[in-house]
Amino acid sequence: MTGAGAFPSGKAYAELLEHFRQSALLRSTAALLAWDQEVLMPAAAVTYRSRQVAQLAAMIHHRLVDSTVGERLAICRHDHAITADPDGDEAVNLRQWQRAYDRAVRLPVSLVEQLAKSSTVAKAHWAEAKRHDDFGRFAPHLAELLALSRDKAACLGTPDGGEPWDALADGFEPGMTAARLTTIFEPLALRLQTLVDRYDGCLDDGLERFGAIDTAAMARFVRTVAARLGFDFKRGRLDTSAHPFCSTFNGDDVRMTTRFVSSHPLEPLFSTMHEAGHGIYNQGLPAEHWGTPRGSSVSYAIHESQSRLWENLVGRSPAFWQWLVPEAGRMGVGALMARPVSEMVAAANAVRRSLIRVEADETTYNLHIIVRFELERALIGGDLEADDLPAAWAQQYRDRLGVAPPDAATGCLQDIHWSQAAFGYFPSYALGNLYAAQFYLAAQTQMPDLESDIAGGRFEPLRAWLNETVHMPGMTWDAETLCRRVTGRPLSAEPFVTCLAAKLEQIYGAR
Amino acid sequence: MTGAGAFPSGKAYAELLEHFRQSALLRSTAALLAWDQEVLMPAAAVTYRSRQVAQLAAMIHHRLVDSTVGERLAICRHDHAITADPDGDEAVNLRQWQRAYDRAVRLPVSLVEQLAKSSTVAKAHWAEAKRHDDFGRFAPHLAELLALSRDKAACLGTPDGGEPWDALADGFEPGMTAARLTTIFEPLALRLQTLVDRYDGCLDDGLERFGAIDTAAMARFVRTVAARLGFDFKRGRLDTSAHPFCSTFNGDDVRMTTRFVSSHPLEPLFSTMHEAGHGIYNQGLPAEHWGTPRGSSVSYAIHESQSRLWENLVGRSPAFWQWLVPEAGRMGVGALMARPVSEMVAAANAVRRSLIRVEADETTYNLHIIVRFELERALIGGDLEADDLPAAWAQQYRDRLGVAPPDAATGCLQDIHWSQAAFGYFPSYALGNLYAAQFYLAAQTQMPDLESDIAGGRFEPLRAWLNETVHMPGMTWDAETLCRRVTGRPLSAEPFVTCLAAKLEQIYGAR
Repeated sequence: MTGAGAFPSGKAYAELLEHFRQSALLRSTAALLAWDQEVLMPAAAVTYRSRQVAQLAAMIHHRLVDSTVGERLAICRHDHAITADPDGDEAVNLRQWQRAYDRAVRLPVSLVEQLAKSSTVAKAHWAEAKRHDDFGRFAPHLAELLALSRDKAACLGTPDGGEPWDALADGFEPGMTAARLTTIFEPLALRLQTLVDRYDGCLDDGLERFGAIDTAAMARFVRTVAARLGFDFKRGRLDTSAHPFCSTFNGDDVRMTTRFVSSHPLEPLFSTMHEAGHGIYNQGLPAEHWGTPRGSSVSYAIHESQSRLWENLVGRSPAFWQWLVPEAGRMGVGALMARPVSEMVAAANAVRRSLIRVEADETTYNLHIIVRFELERALIGGDLEADDLPAAWAQQYRDRLGVAPPDAATGCLQDIHWSQAAFGYFPSYALGNLYAAQFYLAAQTQMPDLESDIAGGRFEPLRAWLNETVHMPGMTWDAETLCRRVTGRPLSAEPFVTCLAAKLEQIYGAR
Repeated sequence: MTGAGAFPSGKAYAELLEHFRQSALLRSTAALLAWDQEVLMPAAAVTYRSRQVAQLAAMIHHRLVDSTVGERLAICRHDHAITADPDGDEAVNLRQWQRAYDRAVRLPVSLVEQLAKSSTVAKAHWAEAKRHDDFGRFAPHLAELLALSRDKAACLGTPDGGEPWDALADGFEPGMTAARLTTIFEPLALRLQTLVDRYDGCLDDGLERFGAIDTAAMARFVRTVAARLGFDFKRGRLDTSAHPFCSTFNGDDVRMTTRFVSSHPLEPLFSTMHEAGHGIYNQGLPAEHWGTPRGSSVSYAIHESQSRLWENLVGRSPAFWQWLVPEAGRMGVGALMARPVSEMVAAANAVRRSLIRVEADETTYNLHIIVRFELERALIGGDLEADDLPAAWAQQYRDRLGVAPPDAATGCLQDIHWSQAAFGYFPSYALGNLYAAQFYLAAQTQMPDLESDIAGGRFEPLRAWLNETVHMPGMTWDAETLCRRVTGRPLSAEPFVTCLAAKLEQIYGAR
């Protein structure tokens, strides 16, 4: 290998582009394997599927740590013409490729492969354990994933006196640390606990009062709503799975799932609006940059901001229900919404100490996340072992939410994440709530008609605004920079808490 | 590279085994991409999907022509301990790996990749062209696939004075040639045309008289039948697609499809029994040999023999309907079968000159295949071009079946195969019919209770017999050797025609 003179940086960049696009293609195939496992795959095929997944994970990793990648990155890094404008497409791509490369070369391929294989198997055992409320079935798999994840954190390392958890979270939220999150989460928790104390029990019951409805009718209904928000079904699907999620193979193939729970008849609406927020983001990324950082989403928190914005800021607003309630009959779910708008809004925002994160209201939701964040830190840091998780979980729920799970199924087995070794992911949900509130405030400021548009069922202006400000830039800026550019303010929990407190007071009165 | 002394053949064999198993794993992922495209994928994603498919096709090809494969094969070939018993697992695998390697090294990777990409795109255009009855939409894609396939045939070459078509057919039916098929097909065609002349119009109408039935009820019914035949739904699925097929990723994940056509209410039953025959074969291969020839199906004709056996020899037999008709009410399709058994059997075996292969009766079916075989020979041999296909198709149908298609949708656009560049495949269907009759005759001889078992809904003895004689040996023997071992006779059209003629006379009387 010779220097830039013999190997012009333009050629090196073009080769990197093709190389990473091929890797993205392979990742999209791996994403189909994962989607299929959740939605369709026969249960008996899980062991075999784990080998398919591990094979692609190893290939993707090998491609990333290929020695030519490091050499070409070095050539490009020293070419001022490419990197002069830090917001230029090439500079954005090079920065992120370098980051991915630097992380990947620290991980042995055997660890990457083992994590892919173990988590594919663990996911299936988690589902079984949850179904049978039997933590013991999952515990050995969790212990294995934990050991592998601790190894991974050790390999990645944490500069500047951080803790092991930081190294894993950095994969989801670049630069975020446990210490920084604590400064955001602790005051937020206090404010939220005050709101919970004030509004818990403000209604005798919530949305579950609206008796069950035919699943087929509900499925048509949520599909109609998702399409109305702007999700393009010509370039996507909506299916069902145990845990709703959104998977993207390409902007032309974005697949979300929902689920139908008889005890919570409106959950499919909110989970579909949530996943549609993810889907609209993925369908709205710049197609010409597909497979590169410039055409990718910023971070998991920014992704979550889009789902939360549609689910909570839009979906739980009085304006939205002003549109939806009169439309419900035409949408085949009239029986579900034969109540005044005010009653529907009150039910959609009912505050209650609860056990299940994905069914939690907007006020308690972040407390569920803070519980998981604390437990993750302890698990990855070595202060908590897999077997002790149920007890620690119950203690955290008593402390933070004032409730205790009666069993593991509604306790530490409720979420899929740790069964996929996605340690470090949960805080992105809470950060997503914070960013969502900041973005929505900015949208309200810049679009005076926003509320009346929503009350009229016109969602296109909001979708277009989000597309222009948040989706189309791809990874041009990091999450916090994007936040400052769009909202004029740094990341803060203040807009979220202020808006929420105001909404609750508007609905339930000062208490 | 040194000789066997420095690199023991045991090690070389183990490395080949691991290498080919990894390739099989990758092929199974490619199969999921193809399955998903037919069953679920959003239409807009086809271009993108073609790139995913081409990427894996290229990888699989690269792995096959890897220079280490040839070197290791050479080492093993000269080790008498491995190859002494030609029916031993190692010898079987080495023989087939060598065959695959010898074929693959003749093909440039660019051609393999282009064929994968073009056929993925062409498949989508074929579906559109068929839907709109517009051959012009498909013609340029067919022309492209034809050019690539002629290139492929030229690269593969045809020893011993064969014709280009032989080189492609060899990929489906090793050793089969157009010349050989002609000696089987021409006398078969004459015998079948005699039967068609005798029995065409023996009924005013066939199965379509049994008015339409609720699709959901029909779907449950065919699922029940498939399970009863022996298809294991814990290790498989049944979905719907435009063209029924069976896809196997692994013995634990076998997926078949059916379709519901209002004009042919019983078609889903026969297409499901057909695909279940494929599925039962795939689920019945020896799991410990998965990913190797020893654990793979013999050839496309043998695969087809299993689907035909269940669809026609079982599914159109009087005994089967003796079981099914009284059961129909309990299976939720009583309205469809409120007729005497004899009437159902007569309808299921009605002989009619028809346009559509997949709806054809047992008597005309092979004539549909012979039409396609002649057209393929001409297309690949350069005697026929894509644009001239509709006219040539109509002429063949007039000559062979005495009917002419009114449009392309019911003519040359009806089948998916050529849109996947699967030239050389069709004859396997006819050979499958012949093998099926031979196997079934052998089963009848060896199992005196077979007919009464079927009339009692007991299919397990037949499934177990097929599993032992046909499925478990994998590729230990080639198709014709397997046929001789199981039936005591060489491949012949005689048992098929004799059984068919006897059945028709039994049902409709001598005419």
